[in-house]
This record gives sequence, C-alpha cells and structure tokens, in this order.
Amino acid sequence: MGPFTTRRRVEFRDTDAAGIAHFSAFFFWMESVEHELLRSVGVAVVERGSDGADASWPRVSAACDYTSAVRFGDELDVSVEVEAIGRSSVTYAFLFAHEARRVARGRIVAVRCLMRPGLKPEAVAIPADIVRRLEAHRSAS
Amino acid sequence: MGPFTTRRRVEFRDTDAAGIAHFSAFFFWMESVEHELLRSVGVAVVERGSDGADASWPRVSAACDYTSAVRFGDELDVSVEVEAIGRSSVTYAFLFAHEARRVARGRIVAVRCLMRPGLKPEAVAIPADIVRRLEAHRSAS
Amino acid sequence: MGPFTTRRRVEFRDTDAAGIAHFSAFFFWMESVEHELLRSVGVAVVERGSDGADASWPRVSAACDYTSAVRFGDELDVSVEVEAIGRSSVTYAFLFAHEARRVARGRIVAVRCLMRPGLKPEAVAIPADIVRRLEAHRSAS
Amino acid sequence: MGPFTTRRRVEFRDTDAAGIAHFSAFFFWMESVEHELLRSVGVAVVERGSDGADASWPRVSAACDYTSAVRFGDELDVSVEVEAIGRSSVTYAFLFAHEARRVARGRIVAVRCLMRPGLKPEAVAIPADIVRRLEAHRSAS
Repeated sequence: MGPFTTRRRVEFRDTDAAGIAHFSAFFFWMESVEHELLRSVGVAVVERGSDGADASWPRVSAACDYTSAVRFGDELDVSVEVEAIGRSSVTYAFLFAHEARRVARGRIVAVRCLMRPGLKPEAVAIPADIVRRLEAHRSAS
Repeated sequence: MGPFTTRRRVEFRDTDAAGIAHFSAFFFWMESVEHELLRSVGVAVVERGSDGADASWPRVSAACDYTSAVRFGDELDVSVEVEAIGRSSVTYAFLFAHEARRVARGRIVAVRCLMRPGLKPEAVAIPADIVRRLEAHRSAS
Repeated sequence: MGPFTTRRRVEFRDTDAAGIAHFSAFFFWMESVEHELLRSVGVAVVERGSDGADASWPRVSAACDYTSAVRFGDELDVSVEVEAIGRSSVTYAFLFAHEARRVARGRIVAVRCLMRPGLKPEAVAIPADIVRRLEAHRSAS
Repeated sequence: MGPFTTRRRVEFRDTDAAGIAHFSAFFFWMESVEHELLRSVGVAVVERGSDGADASWPRVSAACDYTSAVRFGDELDVSVEVEAIGRSSVTYAFLFAHEARRVARGRIVAVRCLMRPGLKPEAVAIPADIVRRLEAHRSAS
C-alpha cells in the first residue's frame, strides 16, 4: 500500500519568537501521525491488559533533520513508512512537505512494552497480527 | 509567612510567532510553582497509596489575566498565596511581575483526589497535616 | 448561525502522569478552535501589514472550569460562541463534551492588536467587516 | 573547561499517560540547556540587529536516544559539550542522567542565522568572538 499520508497544520502554539515552527513541533506531529497510522490499520495505541499492565509504544530513539522553515497556518503533507520491524521495535520514517517543498525528514523507533504503574517499561515481542497490519505501510526498499 | 516567591525564565519554547510568551505558558508556570510551593512545605505532589491509588491534585479551575507581554529570556518574579482551603480543594492566587511591572494575575483551584488507573478521580478530604502546612502561605485577607 | 462546532482528539502529548488530559491542553484546544472559527468566516488570524506591523489577537484573559476528566484518544466535541464584541476585544465561550457528557467550559478574551517587533502590542479597533463576520457566531442571549 | 553541567527537574507537564516523561521533553531540556550554556559564556541567544534582522540559532538537526524512563519529580543531571563548530553551525552533545544512571543521549545542530520577519533564515558565519567563547566547552576528543 505504500506510505501512509496525512496532513497537519502549524498551530500558533507550534511557533516561536523566531516566527517559525519550533523544532519540537515536528516530534509532536510524528507522534500524532504514528498514532493515526496505528488506528488506521486497527492497532490500539494503548492496549489495556487484563492484569493492569497496558501494552504501549514508548520511543527509544527520535530524530529530525530540518531543511526549510514553516510558519503559522502552513499545512504540511506528512508521509510515513514503516522502515523496519524488529522483535519488539518498529522504525517509522517521516517526510514533511509544504507546497511540494521538502521541509523535514524524521525517524522514530518505538518499542512494544508492557507498562506497569511504577515499574520499568518491559519490552515484549510484537504480536504477529500487529506485525501483519504494520506491513501494509512497509517501505518498498 | 506570607506569599511563596520564586522565579521563572521565559524559555524559547514558551514564545510564539508574535514574539511574546504564549498565553499558555503562564499555566505551566502556575503548575510548576504550585508544585515548588508544595515541596517547600513538605507535601508530596503525588502521594503513592499502598493500594495502587495515588493521591494527587487535579485542577477544577484555572484562569489568568494578562496585563503586559513578556519576551524570551525575561525573568519573572512569581508570587503565590493560598487563597482558600476547602474540604478537598485549595485555591492558589498567583502574581507575575517582570522588573517590578505587573505582568499577569492567575488563579488555580486544585482538588485532592485519589487517582486509580482507568477510574474517575475521586475527591477526598485534605489531611489535617497538609492543611496545616498549606496555612504557612495563606493569604492575609 | 449559532455556535461554531468542531472536534479535537486527545493526543498523547496532551496527557499527563495522572493518566488524563493535562489541564493546559484545553487552552491549546481553545486557541486552535478560535483560529478555526476565524478562518471559517474568512478572517485572517494574522494580517500582514504593509508597514511591518501585523494585526493579530493576543489574549488578555483565559479561563477554564473542568467537570470531568478525559483520556488519551477521546474525541471531544467543541462548541464556541462569540459572547461579546467590544471596540477591540472579542470574548469567546467554549463548551467541551465527550460522548454527550460535559467535560469543560472555557472563556478567552482576545484583543485586536498591532504587533511591531520589539514594541508592546497596541490595541486597535476591530474593523467593521471583521465584526460583521464574527456576528455569525454571536451567542443568542 | 570540559562539559557544561546543570540540572532539570521533570515537571508534571513533561509527563504522559504512560506515567513517564514524554520523549519530547528531552528536546525542550536540550534547548533550555543550550541557552543556559550560551548565557554562561556571554553569548546572546538572540542578538538584536540594528537593521531589524536578529541573529539567532535555529536547528537543522535534533536527535535523542533513550535508555531509561524518568518520572515526575526526578532531577536530571544534564551535561553538554560542543562537539563541533563549523562555519555557521554548532553541534551540541548532551548526556542525561538520573541518580548516576544514564537516561538519554542527545544531539542538536544549531546554525547561526539572520532572521528577518517573513523571510527565510539566512545562515551566516559565526563571529570569531563567539567561536572563542564556545571553545570553552569543546569536547576533548
């Protein structure tokens, strides 16, 4: 199926005194789009466990390279692919464009973890059904 | 003892494309200063319960009036008083100043609640010991 | 025409360690919805001036009362009315609901200002054309 | 002189519904610490230009790898070094620790730019005096 595509608008809260979108905003957009992709393929972002342990996707790595500034009100085309799927990790690669001009390129690595209140997140294998659903947006390479 | 006083600096993340601190930043400062006040009088912001129910302080009301814009790098003098203590609620009144000029005035009402994962916050009476500690910064009026 | 209505989803960034949407998130939603309303009636949120002075809408007051907690992934129905229009100010009243249950009620007062780099925002009269457009969502009362 | 060191506390706003600091918080801390370092060596974060063009430091790259979760109230020891200085770019390398346990490692590349309202940021050479000041925290490698 190729990349998952969606749009995000630069809200006022995303801007800074330099008059452009703050570099941190791209990480929020990546998270929001990652979650939109998960929902679109029927994967719960947070899966309630019967024993109080929720399964979720904390990040072990996040990165973004910026090539062009964007401003309040700009609409961004966001494209994301699943670049790699490991035993418990998923690597997402993001492209941000504004009016067909490349704006930024990002990458997030999320790890399937059991989250128990007060305990450390525990990495677990990604269930086969979820792997299969993520394959829908696997990058071609 | 009168008001609790502290300082906060306008970080770049707090600014917006109008070149001034975003109005939302004052709510973050209020929360941060509320917590600093609690720590200073020996009250845990989140109190771990033996049964998995933490006691914490969600807000039921928050408000801020702005009289003057502040900019990146400005240092704000923040003063907060406990304006009222109810059975389960605490009302904090904040004053923000920059170089002796009034910048904003805010108010937050927090309610002592038991927080159980997945359940609604449940308001509980504020323990007498905590009331006593909060009295240290009770407003004079 | 009555209230302007739209939806916002609770993103993960909006949540806090109490497992619910952070109280600050409602202020971001109010701003975002205020801007969506302005766009919908053809009013620029930031109007570029020929002389480098942009006209925009900084807030002089913001408040929110919370009646029910919302959680990650919840979709909120947001309704906003223009409660009052002064010479240079607009008062917006917001209602937030989740599955028909009232969640929060907020109010923002924005002031039409000329923003010049490094200078204080200067309140100006709201142009008649903008007043007329805002009347479309004037509250009935 | 070696690394510049400081501390940051995990504020409630920095946490998420998984009960831990949100991954985005580390980017805010990196920015805040970068600016604290600049101030400590006498470099203005934003330098007002006589012609309305401010010199500032937008980022072209930001990355963070996370090895351990931190929670509300935790105090983080942050250490930052200037890893590289180019004609117009500075690369900062950050280490975050909590109670002597490595928590995260980050990197930011900032570029000296002239920021003119409405125009694209324009990269400029870093003045020699600023290079000299940054050398104080140059990594040993």
